[in-house]
Amino acid sequence: MPTNNRQWKLANRPTGLITPDVLQLSASPLPAISEGQALARVKYLSIDPTMRVWMADVAQYMPPVQIGEVMRAFGFAEIVESRHPDYKKGDKVSGLTGLQEYVLISGDEKRGFQKVPSIPFLSDINFLNLLGINGLTAYFGLLEIGQPQSGETLVVSAAAGATGSIVGQLGKIQGCRVVGIAGSDEKCKWIKDDLGFDAAINYKASDWKEQLAAATPKGVDINFENVGGAVMQAVLDRMNLHGRVVLCGLISGYTRQDPGLASFGQVLIKRLRVEGFIILDYAPRFMEAGQKLGMWKMTGKLKNRETVVKGIEKAPEAINMLFEGDNIGKLVVEL
Amino acid sequence: MPTNNRQWKLANRPTGLITPDVLQLSASPLPAISEGQALARVKYLSIDPTMRVWMADVAQYMPPVQIGEVMRAFGFAEIVESRHPDYKKGDKVSGLTGLQEYVLISGDEKRGFQKVPSIPFLSDINFLNLLGINGLTAYFGLLEIGQPQSGETLVVSAAAGATGSIVGQLGKIQGCRVVGIAGSDEKCKWIKDDLGFDAAINYKASDWKEQLAAATPKGVDINFENVGGAVMQAVLDRMNLHGRVVLCGLISGYTRQDPGLASFGQVLIKRLRVEGFIILDYAPRFMEAGQKLGMWKMTGKLKNRETVVKGIEKAPEAINMLFEGDNIGKLVVEL
Repeated sequence: MPTNNRQWKLANRPTGLITPDVLQLSASPLPAISEGQALARVKYLSIDPTMRVWMADVAQYMPPVQIGEVMRAFGFAEIVESRHPDYKKGDKVSGLTGLQEYVLISGDEKRGFQKVPSIPFLSDINFLNLLGINGLTAYFGLLEIGQPQSGETLVVSAAAGATGSIVGQLGKIQGCRVVGIAGSDEKCKWIKDDLGFDAAINYKASDWKEQLAAATPKGVDINFENVGGAVMQAVLDRMNLHGRVVLCGLISGYTRQDPGLASFGQVLIKRLRVEGFIILDYAPRFMEAGQKLGMWKMTGKLKNRETVVKGIEKAPEAINMLFEGDNIGKLVVEL
Repeated sequence: MPTNNRQWKLANRPTGLITPDVLQLSASPLPAISEGQALARVKYLSIDPTMRVWMADVAQYMPPVQIGEVMRAFGFAEIVESRHPDYKKGDKVSGLTGLQEYVLISGDEKRGFQKVPSIPFLSDINFLNLLGINGLTAYFGLLEIGQPQSGETLVVSAAAGATGSIVGQLGKIQGCRVVGIAGSDEKCKWIKDDLGFDAAINYKASDWKEQLAAATPKGVDINFENVGGAVMQAVLDRMNLHGRVVLCGLISGYTRQDPGLASFGQVLIKRLRVEGFIILDYAPRFMEAGQKLGMWKMTGKLKNRETVVKGIEKAPEAINMLFEGDNIGKLVVEL
């Protein structure tokens, strides 16, 4: 076992993408564990748009990461040494590991570690996407905020992303017409041919707004929004009366000034409900969601795909990949 | 009885305020009534921001007024001649009279005419504000969309307007801390001293955002929004987690390009619910609302104030008064 723990610490707050001065890789000695603690080796780091928000010194749903702190991240890890009554060597856990190789788990820590059961049809990464932040976000966002009814039209942006790809499949399970918006033909092909979306639109095509209109002949009842900006605006213009906007993310605004929303008047004219949410609010119901998501996965109704980047040294580049649209499905760093 | 009916017809669609070319005053002969019809003389015209929306050729909750049509307006009228089984001479009605002196009421018309009972403590104008569009908008918007809880903080914009002034008083009845935003010291004095708002802020004061912060020490739980633009943005920045934005109007954008909403990201970060609505959706419950509003009026818990402009020829100027903030309380044209 190595004696060092490599960690990415926040050195400077970013202004746009993650430049080399933002995160600093350093090594500290592996901590000795005390009674009531366990040490876990991180296998996969979950790379999520929310990390960019955590780096910014703005009011948000969790405290921003402080300068000098290990960068916050979800991860999947395996216990290598334990003096904690709940964990033994070889146990697998998921939670806020941070962008580092090893994480110390204490009895009183607040990073939401969950012991991960071994289930034949679920991969390790599935505990970061399907049963992690993405699956739970898709489940509660679409079902609770979106309130989909059979026959309604659902449009999801960043549709080939980790969350969007699950949202669209849940929409199909609910009997919706599902239209995905994504940024490449390859992504569109995947969500349409493999995931069963009714239509997929590449927003980089010059006629994408006409394509969106053609794909939503009865208008849009639910917009599951991950992007914001011009993409959201075009969907808002297609919304039906009493439509619902599930505001999950605004990734187009994370690496630059919040572009705001030009068509905001549509919310009034169309009597829309626009609701921001975060899965932490649904924590008491995670078990219910996990069971349903797991069942749909087992019966082939939910499919996943991953983009795997190897090596902790690649973590900052991986974060930028999210904002440049370079991943399909869940983006993880494998250590 | 005169033989002519003066009518304001839409001649050109406005681009900003109502310029002299937008509405044209013409006179047509008073129609002879047929079996099943009644003729009513308009006493008061209700001047509402939504009229500006009706003039624009954009998708909206009712069809836009067509060029050449009598301009749509709510009004209060008295039957002068009737061959309609439901009406007799002297009956009072409210509904979409249009900007004209006389209105023909047919059995099949869709302008929502309601016979108005004679109730001692209610004035004629009360059927246009308290029991009309403003009272119903305040009632359903605040209680159904806003879901106020005792002890919460409510901020209402255009607080000295016909709707905003009722919203704030309903907020007090619900036990909220109520802060109003208005555009003059006189308006602020009225809502604070006479209507019982906890605080009133003149958004034309240079330090109004600091005043808003000081008046909302526990943040804002409910924003009843009538204005949009910079006013809404400042309130959004004060919203608490899980706050509700009742999107009733965006008057700042009606006479110019929709300014959009710069702080839209707050909806996500604060997990807000932003909901547009229109009272037509609550039509089956108008009776319930009317009874409660009438009771509060009778017991002195709701007060009203009117700005009365005399003469149908002043109607276009009166509409502009709304956008220039020249009215306190309900704005009506008395014929």
